[in-house]
Amino acid sequence: MASTPHSAMESALVVASNRGPVSFERDEDGKLVARRGSGGLVTVLGGVLERDDATWVAAAVTEGDREIAPRGRKVEGAAQRVRYVDIPEQVYDGYYNGIANGVLWFAHHYLWDIARTPSFGEQTEQEWADYVEANRAFARALAVEAKHDPVFLIQDYHLTLVPGMLRELVPDARILHFSHTPFAGRTYLRTLPDDMRRSILRGMLGADVVGFQGRQWGENFLLSVRELDDVHVDIRAHRAEVDGREVQVRSFPVAVGAQEIREAAASDRAKRARAQVEKIRGDRKLLLRVDRLEPSKNILRGFLAFELLLQKHPDWRGRVVFLALLSPSREEVPAYRDYGTDCRDTADRINAAFGKEDWNPIVVKLQENFTYAVAAYDQYDAMLVNPVHDGMNLVAMEGPVLNSRGGSLILSRNAGAFGRLGRHALAINPFDLSETAEAIHEALEMPEDERTRRARGLQRSALAHTPATWLAGQLRAIDEVRPPAP
Amino acid sequence: MASTPHSAMESALVVASNRGPVSFERDEDGKLVARRGSGGLVTVLGGVLERDDATWVAAAVTEGDREIAPRGRKVEGAAQRVRYVDIPEQVYDGYYNGIANGVLWFAHHYLWDIARTPSFGEQTEQEWADYVEANRAFARALAVEAKHDPVFLIQDYHLTLVPGMLRELVPDARILHFSHTPFAGRTYLRTLPDDMRRSILRGMLGADVVGFQGRQWGENFLLSVRELDDVHVDIRAHRAEVDGREVQVRSFPVAVGAQEIREAAASDRAKRARAQVEKIRGDRKLLLRVDRLEPSKNILRGFLAFELLLQKHPDWRGRVVFLALLSPSREEVPAYRDYGTDCRDTADRINAAFGKEDWNPIVVKLQENFTYAVAAYDQYDAMLVNPVHDGMNLVAMEGPVLNSRGGSLILSRNAGAFGRLGRHALAINPFDLSETAEAIHEALEMPEDERTRRARGLQRSALAHTPATWLAGQLRAIDEVRPPAP
Repeated sequence: MASTPHSAMESALVVASNRGPVSFERDEDGKLVARRGSGGLVTVLGGVLERDDATWVAAAVTEGDREIAPRGRKVEGAAQRVRYVDIPEQVYDGYYNGIANGVLWFAHHYLWDIARTPSFGEQTEQEWADYVEANRAFARALAVEAKHDPVFLIQDYHLTLVPGMLRELVPDARILHFSHTPFAGRTYLRTLPDDMRRSILRGMLGADVVGFQGRQWGENFLLSVRELDDVHVDIRAHRAEVDGREVQVRSFPVAVGAQEIREAAASDRAKRARAQVEKIRGDRKLLLRVDRLEPSKNILRGFLAFELLLQKHPDWRGRVVFLALLSPSREEVPAYRDYGTDCRDTADRINAAFGKEDWNPIVVKLQENFTYAVAAYDQYDAMLVNPVHDGMNLVAMEGPVLNSRGGSLILSRNAGAFGRLGRHALAINPFDLSETAEAIHEALEMPEDERTRRARGLQRSALAHTPATWLAGQLRAIDEVRPPAP
Repeated sequence: MASTPHSAMESALVVASNRGPVSFERDEDGKLVARRGSGGLVTVLGGVLERDDATWVAAAVTEGDREIAPRGRKVEGAAQRVRYVDIPEQVYDGYYNGIANGVLWFAHHYLWDIARTPSFGEQTEQEWADYVEANRAFARALAVEAKHDPVFLIQDYHLTLVPGMLRELVPDARILHFSHTPFAGRTYLRTLPDDMRRSILRGMLGADVVGFQGRQWGENFLLSVRELDDVHVDIRAHRAEVDGREVQVRSFPVAVGAQEIREAAASDRAKRARAQVEKIRGDRKLLLRVDRLEPSKNILRGFLAFELLLQKHPDWRGRVVFLALLSPSREEVPAYRDYGTDCRDTADRINAAFGKEDWNPIVVKLQENFTYAVAAYDQYDAMLVNPVHDGMNLVAMEGPVLNSRGGSLILSRNAGAFGRLGRHALAINPFDLSETAEAIHEALEMPEDERTRRARGLQRSALAHTPATWLAGQLRAIDEVRPPAP
């Protein structure tokens, strides 16, 4: 076992993710100013890199980003420094839209219509070459940051090749890869072209620690790895041995930063948004969902289950509003666009069938607006979180932290968050419309005392873990594989 | 461990499967005559039950079957007796079309378009009740056959509850359940309604031995079983312990009966069919596929890969014919019908785009005709077997046994048969059109000596196992769990 002078806890940190915590744009005076990014990964990681010696490496997305890459810059109002990897637009498109979101996201969430999609061909080969090139650009940028022997924290399915490439450039680097998504089962992963599948598995094995949101995803990874040549796998011990190195496979379920979302909820903008939500609700019950508009979130079946509720329990007509806050997502990928159209059409159809002059059953807000979401969290009577599969799902935790009405949570058993919140939530199979409709009914009908008891349990469980403990767990795991010199 | 007076090898056998080896119909004189069934299961099992003390229990499908159920009757020209389970038509529809082929087949072959299908609701609940009722009817019929302490061989996804139900009726019964299909991974299986998934797993655990076509499916089963309460699982030892009983999970890859298919190939009808195939081929190369018209067989991508071949290697235009022998399948299930339409439309489109007066690139024969298939096996230069997932795939073995032209086999890595034939075949990822098109090109271009060498290897591997050894392996496994008294 290689050893290293510092404990990971005391080492500099270098985070790599596709999207950074900020993007730089020129303001009216021509000055470069930082605009905050959104998305779960940035929220979780942003709050935790409170140290001066943290560097965040991300893909440049704006002209401003490109200007300061690879020099890098300190982020105002945060401790970390950010530097960008400048990837040619064409390459970025193949890497990001083609492979990461068009192929790997679908694999890990079981989203293909296997009889018809995917069909891999020359376009996939080109996009895969782009993915390799983008990952190599990241690895090179990270190698430059290696001089203080930092811990490298490589994020997600966009950067699966980076651990292996960085290992080649810096053989003694301490590297952790973390997947925020699920990880496809062994059989389903074989949908990928053979070469792609092997490269991804080998790339991830370049890390010392391969982290997932839950134990089952780590097992899926190891079951696939076991089929590679020259890798020894011990599934029970959650480890693999490759090129004489030990690789630990561990789970580190992410957590929400309570302080950050509470601050957002206390802002003036949030107060104004809350007034708007109150107007939508009126004197009715409010059913809420907050999601990226994206097939894994199961928005379509959520609407269909709500329709079934109105059919089976007609006394809810006029007495409940379903507010769906959907942020546009990955509209460059055709399957996402089609799904978005289906969702909106279905909501329109249900509204036309059941709506009255003074009651619109489903209110869809298609916008990127975290403040509005935070305001709505405060106000729901029930929240529906029904993903077909989900690594964790932060919405399921953010809602209960901020809700002030003893709101119920209807939660998919296939969300990683179910492991933490399941016993206080109403559990559903996300494919079962009857079960979902009945769970909504039960949530809205629930007696006050049971609602309150469950809501308290949800909040307690959501707050029991923090982004800081999530990070500390990862650094401890690094120390176990590469123990610091005594 | 319970022990039993006889070895399983010397015990009476009772086979249960949805479809029996024959169906009875009245001829012109009003006499009940047996008509042979088709399908892989019947072919494999039919040849092996050569013993007087074998009974085959199947669902009645004709009026004739209903007349003789449950009395049963000896099958002319075969050793076994057959008896039928009379299931009301409505119940049969829910059990067979609704759950078995509409839900479980899709689960085990990963065929859902997860963002949109399935959506379970009241109809599923009714169909599931039908499935339970049909399985119970089978279990009762089997219990009647228990008096001579036979070995019960329960077949496939139609009858997953039977082992558990039969165990309740006959606690000491020796029971084996065998899946001819793949078995869905743990995550994908969670698509099923919870109650359905648990019932199926528990039902199968009613057997002493749970058999699959390959080790990976058995592991998938055990990984799901491990999540049940009160079951102890040892994945490495491939066993489970439930209610104080031991359950062994084993793989028994099926084999083809060479004699039976060789006899079919030697018939006069086969000779006439061969002349027809020769006419279709002319002086061109013949690419063949033989399949049920069904989404898991990946017929659509097969046509698209052939189109890609004609685009990338235009010198093949006019020099190769793709003969697709497709037998209609499960047309009561809408997704199958839609898939069939897509396949035919795609073939028509390609023929319109590339065809000439004297050359039709793709010839689709939509018919149930085993003799014709057997005749075509003799004649192909290359055969395409590209299922998205497949428990075994008998076509991949039948073809090489009968082919007389040193024909090549292009074989999906996701077919169970790949484990047996893979090193002599051209391996493809069934989702990769480029790889499939290039493999067809390589197969048709292959030098004579390599073709011959591979063809011999394929035949040798296909014949290395027989249905008799397949059955014997199962009976030995039964003896291991319930050893005969010395």
